[in-house]
Amino acid sequence: MELFTVDDLPLIKEGDNIAAMICERTQLESHDVVVIASTIVAKSEAATVLKGAIIPSERAVAMAKKCGTDPALVQVVLDNSVEQIVEFPVLLVENLNGHVSINAGIDDSNVEDEYFLEMPHDPDGSAKAIGMHVADLCGKDVSVIITDTNGRSFKIGQTGVAVGVYGVHPIKNWRGEKDLFGKVLEITEEAVADEVASAANLLMGEAAGGTPVVIVRGLDLYSSDDVSVKEMYRREGEDIIRKGLKCLRHS
Amino acid sequence: MELFTVDDLPLIKEGDNIAAMICERTQLESHDVVVIASTIVAKSEAATVLKGAIIPSERAVAMAKKCGTDPALVQVVLDNSVEQIVEFPVLLVENLNGHVSINAGIDDSNVEDEYFLEMPHDPDGSAKAIGMHVADLCGKDVSVIITDTNGRSFKIGQTGVAVGVYGVHPIKNWRGEKDLFGKVLEITEEAVADEVASAANLLMGEAAGGTPVVIVRGLDLYSSDDVSVKEMYRREGEDIIRKGLKCLRHS
Ligand SMILES: Nc1nc2c(ncn2[C@@H]2O[C@H](COP(=O)(O)OP(=O)(O)O)[C@@H](O)[C@H]2O)c(=O)[nH]1
Ligand SMILES: Nc1nc2c(ncn2[C@@H]2O[C@H](COP(=O)(O)OP(=O)(O)O)[C@@H](O)[C@H]2O)c(=O)[nH]1
Ligand SMILES: [Mn+2]
Ligand SMILES: [Mn+2]
Ligand SMILES: [Mn+2]
Ligand SMILES: [Mn+2]
Repeated sequence: MELFTVDDLPLIKEGDNIAAMICERTQLESHDVVVIASTIVAKSEAATVLKGAIIPSERAVAMAKKCGTDPALVQVVLDNSVEQIVEFPVLLVENLNGHVSINAGIDDSNVEDEYFLEMPHDPDGSAKAIGMHVADLCGKDVSVIITDTNGRSFKIGQTGVAVGVYGVHPIKNWRGEKDLFGKVLEITEEAVADEVASAANLLMGEAAGGTPVVIVRGLDLYSSDDVSVKEMYRREGEDIIRKGLKCLRHS
Repeated sequence: MELFTVDDLPLIKEGDNIAAMICERTQLESHDVVVIASTIVAKSEAATVLKGAIIPSERAVAMAKKCGTDPALVQVVLDNSVEQIVEFPVLLVENLNGHVSINAGIDDSNVEDEYFLEMPHDPDGSAKAIGMHVADLCGKDVSVIITDTNGRSFKIGQTGVAVGVYGVHPIKNWRGEKDLFGKVLEITEEAVADEVASAANLLMGEAAGGTPVVIVRGLDLYSSDDVSVKEMYRREGEDIIRKGLKCLRHS
């Protein structure tokens, strides 16, 4: 399996055609996985909020004061979340797409200072649009994974995760497979979309590397099914961690 | 960056010299990352428990009954954990190495049916021993990451994670770095050891692939510092998720 960056991409702005930019810069192969940082998808779609236009509610001001954060950021996070799972010391929410992360993935990095960057409003849809444009432009069927960098429970540090997919099921199902001794497997659901996102993030980096697109070659995960990143999200009743955090909120 | 499996490894048994087996089968390069499934490290170290010798305590029997699991497995998990964070519907614990996972990483797959497989008792130590043997045997300084497959909060599915390291800091620190607009970064701690583990796990698979060793080339993370996977583990007082789960236990 090899991974390589698509180089010499410019600063992305509203209306930029990411699929065309990729096809112009690299020769894709059938069933490549095209991994794209959500930051540039959001910029191309103008999924941004002008900081100066935000009027923080009383609730946002209070929450920001408690956490030592920016009330305007808190307001945008509230506007982009369906549930605030933890409010202090971090604002952990479920965003409008069902994705759980700190600050709803709203970012202040790699965007002009006057803006907050939102998550793409329909990441699966964005992945599909890019994947289909790539198929049109360079005649190759590719999987597309849109990524973000998120923290996680119990451990310090952040890793690349998938926030939208096209042409690949986020979970690879090993049900019914056997181990080396012929025994049926216990671990049956491998979150390959997140594993690929993490791999690609090693080449994207978090700073000014300027490499928001990584091609993964030699790992055929392609599917022509309708797919969604939501195949990975737990239904709330089945989520013991969320239950615990709810308990903390009400205590 | 390229990743490739070390092929034709036999079924690993107690006393096998994993470093020698790797050097015999592949030509390593300076600062390669050698990624090794904990399953084979545990087998080579006989970090196993004979199922027939386990006498489950009353507590293990009760917990197993509630979860619908094997009391013998529960007993081994209890013996290998310092804290049971969640007891139902899954047994989420902190193991003797400080690693938080379901069932303390105790496994029933890819080992003879009479045994449970434990985690290596000192995964950083095992990684160091292998790394130093590799340096002796083929004269190359390599990083070593020992991996397991774990689940995670909020999302279905499991991914490759690091459980022991040598020659690489698990967290890459971006503090002080600037983004494309010259602004200082918010995300400063990238959990590269887990990202590499996830990448390698795509080639290991979860079943009978027979590929427990993956070489990652072209990503220089090498450090001659003393390192430990514990650089990634949160101190308990700082862990809001554990606080919430404690709340649930006491409610
Ligand atoms: N060429 C180019 N690179 C960008 C742009 N925006 C972000 N990047 C790069 O994309 C990579 C990932 O950026 P990051 O802000 O971490 O994205 P996120 O993980 O989606 O939040 C880094 O290498 C950035 O330097 C852009 O507009 N043009
Ligand atoms: N050649 C060989 N492969 C093994 C052995 N044990 C496990 N594997 C392979 O190593 C990979 C990872 O195994 P897994 O049980 O998921 O390890 P874990 O992630 O450490 O729990 C799979 O491809 C297995 O088939 C062994 O003794 N010999
Ligand atoms: Mn981001
Ligand atoms: Mn990032
Ligand atoms: Mn395991
Ligand atoms: Mn595994």
